[in-house]
Amino acid sequence: MTRLTEHSMEIRVRYSETDAMAFLHHATFFVYFEMGRTELFRAAGGSYRRMEERGLFFVVTHIECDYKTPGRYDDLLTLTTRISRMSFAKLEHTYEVTRQGTLVAKGKSVLACLDRKGEVQRLSEELLYETPSAEGDA
Amino acid sequence: MTRLTEHSMEIRVRYSETDAMAFLHHATFFVYFEMGRTELFRAAGGSYRRMEERGLFFVVTHIECDYKTPGRYDDLLTLTTRISRMSFAKLEHTYEVTRQGTLVAKGKSVLACLDRKGEVQRLSEELLYETPSAEGDA
Amino acid sequence: MTRLTEHSMEIRVRYSETDAMAFLHHATFFVYFEMGRTELFRAAGGSYRRMEERGLFFVVTHIECDYKTPGRYDDLLTLTTRISRMSFAKLEHTYEVTRQGTLVAKGKSVLACLDRKGEVQRLSEELLYETPSAEGDA
Amino acid sequence: MTRLTEHSMEIRVRYSETDAMAFLHHATFFVYFEMGRTELFRAAGGSYRRMEERGLFFVVTHIECDYKTPGRYDDLLTLTTRISRMSFAKLEHTYEVTRQGTLVAKGKSVLACLDRKGEVQRLSEELLYETPSAEGDA
Repeated sequence: MTRLTEHSMEIRVRYSETDAMAFLHHATFFVYFEMGRTELFRAAGGSYRRMEERGLFFVVTHIECDYKTPGRYDDLLTLTTRISRMSFAKLEHTYEVTRQGTLVAKGKSVLACLDRKGEVQRLSEELLYETPSAEGDA
Repeated sequence: MTRLTEHSMEIRVRYSETDAMAFLHHATFFVYFEMGRTELFRAAGGSYRRMEERGLFFVVTHIECDYKTPGRYDDLLTLTTRISRMSFAKLEHTYEVTRQGTLVAKGKSVLACLDRKGEVQRLSEELLYETPSAEGDA
Repeated sequence: MTRLTEHSMEIRVRYSETDAMAFLHHATFFVYFEMGRTELFRAAGGSYRRMEERGLFFVVTHIECDYKTPGRYDDLLTLTTRISRMSFAKLEHTYEVTRQGTLVAKGKSVLACLDRKGEVQRLSEELLYETPSAEGDA
Repeated sequence: MTRLTEHSMEIRVRYSETDAMAFLHHATFFVYFEMGRTELFRAAGGSYRRMEERGLFFVVTHIECDYKTPGRYDDLLTLTTRISRMSFAKLEHTYEVTRQGTLVAKGKSVLACLDRKGEVQRLSEELLYETPSAEGDA
């Protein structure tokens, strides 16, 4: 598979994302992971927004995170998102959040794809992307 | 008009709603105001959820807040929501947030009602409530 | 151990917690879990807020959630929080979110207790609670 | 005054920031405004984070927003933040959020600067910035 399956982006910690410990609140990492999926999908030639306009929705069925060291306001974090597995019905991602090379947190998630009626859709290159992959271009 | 136009509720400040100053983050008050509108509307015999199922949506066109003293994690706040004005096309509310009688913040908002196409709907008792008012019952 | 280790509370889904799928956003469950820990701790005779005033902080080192069916705006959910394990350095909780008896999501978390310098504190009844347990009273 | 008093930045709307109407939730704009203040302050040679480390805190005493057209998931918005007034004790900002030239929302805020005891601090160039202004350099 020649599709892009890894993407890195920088995220500046917002003041509203901190808590009374002055740490980046642990639930915010899941918001970051979702941003990582959006940007990886865009970089690979897809668009969640257009998928939703076509009546297809990704729902998270499992997500988890391990926290190693606190994030703080104004930190410039690097989020790396990878597709770790794509099966008949599930799309799995892993995530790493680092600050200047130090691991802040790592996570993983499992997504399913549903139509408007809530029925699970079979995942395929054709479903996900509107343009052929680099391989398809060859 | 005999409809209920005022409602008070208690809100416990969540840890995730605090920021690095250990204060309740100022943007969270607008989330509280929305809860106040939902509960006032429910207490008066309406339901935002059912309105949305009927294809009617309230959108905020203006909102503001004045902050008097900080809220903190685990504070038990009292939010009082009042309908201050209902005109042809606008619904205005005012809000007061207090902690044991001390004013924490006060705000106001203006809402418009739209249909699915985004067209402004004329506000009326019939539009808002499914049951007649006490006056209507008499 | 005679301390309370289970607590249930009701949570009304806020409009701001929904997303464009009209579902309760998956990251919000972690905010609910934190509310469950706060209320379980309070019901058992402790107080996170006073712990923080004494310079002790709980940090989440691992958290996860499995999603079974979507939550929606205005749903009245029931969150049940249980202490599943308390060891030398870790406090483990499990969570169940239901709506009228139907399982919406379940999760678990691991917390460590730190002092102001970030050093791990040994967990004990004495550390956590200011009042003796029912057993201690006997 | 030769300090920079205006700053523009792009913000990508996050999925978690949308609501069940599929609109960017109105409270999120206040989070964006705070990002704008942070970046304007940074661009002008200051740092909120270092101010907080020195024991100085900005608190919002008033904030408001007018909404013109909805934002949606994945929109790339432009936020322009301006210092509109700086007096003895108050710092006033205005904000404009646009999407491809169309006005989405506009707002304004008033901030006060407090020390650790909560006492209002007199605002000055020296308080805010660690480096002399361009004029000071001449």
